[in-house]
Amino acid sequence: MKVVLLGSGNVATHLAKALKANGEEIVQIYSKQLDHAALLANLMGCQAVQKLNDLNPDADLYIIAVKDDVIAEVALALKNFEGLVVHTSGTTDLALLSAIVKHAGVFYPLQTFSKAKDVSFEQIPICIEANDEDQLAVLKKIASKLSRQVHELGGDKRRVLHLAAVFASNFPNHLYALANQILEENNLDFQIIRPLIAETAEKVMFSLPNKVQTGPAIREDENTINKHLEMLKSMPELQSIYQSLSESIKLTLK
Amino acid sequence: MKVVLLGSGNVATHLAKALKANGEEIVQIYSKQLDHAALLANLMGCQAVQKLNDLNPDADLYIIAVKDDVIAEVALALKNFEGLVVHTSGTTDLALLSAIVKHAGVFYPLQTFSKAKDVSFEQIPICIEANDEDQLAVLKKIASKLSRQVHELGGDKRRVLHLAAVFASNFPNHLYALANQILEENNLDFQIIRPLIAETAEKVMFSLPNKVQTGPAIREDENTINKHLEMLKSMPELQSIYQSLSESIKLTLK
Repeated sequence: MKVVLLGSGNVATHLAKALKANGEEIVQIYSKQLDHAALLANLMGCQAVQKLNDLNPDADLYIIAVKDDVIAEVALALKNFEGLVVHTSGTTDLALLSAIVKHAGVFYPLQTFSKAKDVSFEQIPICIEANDEDQLAVLKKIASKLSRQVHELGGDKRRVLHLAAVFASNFPNHLYALANQILEENNLDFQIIRPLIAETAEKVMFSLPNKVQTGPAIREDENTINKHLEMLKSMPELQSIYQSLSESIKLTLK
Repeated sequence: MKVVLLGSGNVATHLAKALKANGEEIVQIYSKQLDHAALLANLMGCQAVQKLNDLNPDADLYIIAVKDDVIAEVALALKNFEGLVVHTSGTTDLALLSAIVKHAGVFYPLQTFSKAKDVSFEQIPICIEANDEDQLAVLKKIASKLSRQVHELGGDKRRVLHLAAVFASNFPNHLYALANQILEENNLDFQIIRPLIAETAEKVMFSLPNKVQTGPAIREDENTINKHLEMLKSMPELQSIYQSLSESIKLTLK
């Protein structure tokens, strides 16, 4: 399949690599920032495009992997194309694309991507949706070549997944960052808590998280909680987060 | 070495197994709840003890792995013993033990333990402290047999580590539980976000968390944030956590 990628961020980069590795032909990379497009296009051995007018109209699949608020703008440039147009957003309705292009779909990989780290697509759940059965079959075929976990999900469920992902990934990562802030202020290295972070994630691979909760809050150890709050008095923002998450953990005991 | 373990919870269980596997002799397991002590003692092939009066006075090492607020009570029963007495608490001062027993120390493994899941001690940082150099050397020897990461740390730094561990482990696990709550309410299975949780932890094994933050808050994507807050309106507790963590992530951009 001939694929055009619109976007050159984390999702576009990892998708382009995975699709190419699976034998799809990446024909163009579009980005408003030509240097970003060029970097990825160079890796893919294809053309970098900075203007929407220069897009190849004969591709089979157009993947829009840009910020949610510019999806519509990009899709408008594809409105007369025959190829299937998908976005990769967790929160944007399929209807937004359906109203603009002939064949619309969603291709949402549920993962956190950083350019600096490669990731194996095999284990990544890919959620697909399309406005007709034929296009859905096409998406299913592509997704199944990349991943062993392909889910046909409507927009409502996809939005729920995206919200859950914020709690399961973006927020934990930020808590790692706050832990590091505490360590740094006391000249301790982040390295010392890496095994703990790894094990905490590892534990929920086979258990549900509420079955393996540990720490002062679940023990209702008010003594330790108060000592910790006292230690955080010079960091009121962290103190407030400590308090509200501890309260939330205690609520699970009710 | 002859070791007596006081406690039969998660820390006591994992320590007992690791010490025995490293050739130490576990001679007694003490617990107020005899059935708990018996379970672990049976595994160790040693005696279960329910009364502090029945403790063996001739062991080399007594490990107190009980809740912080009963450490002193248990230590009082050991006050005339010659063996080294350590606690495993992140927050309790060495001074508490030093005031009671002849030879006092701290043996704090920085990890989250669940009885249901085995864990390799090799990667677990063990923080040690003692009230004299000879005892410290003894602890260092035992700890180094269990783990490749042994740290001599005073109480102040140990308390900081314990606090950081709450942010890096207890809170992220609770956020996994909240994610699961959102999924369950929408008939979606926790299994679908496990790869995301694993990758989120994996990413910070080689990067610092603030370098790999993703999600709507770090993109200042107010549109998505507002949609998420709207989706959480029937779960005000989660809504409030969503808001405060998103604000905290945005602060890192300033």
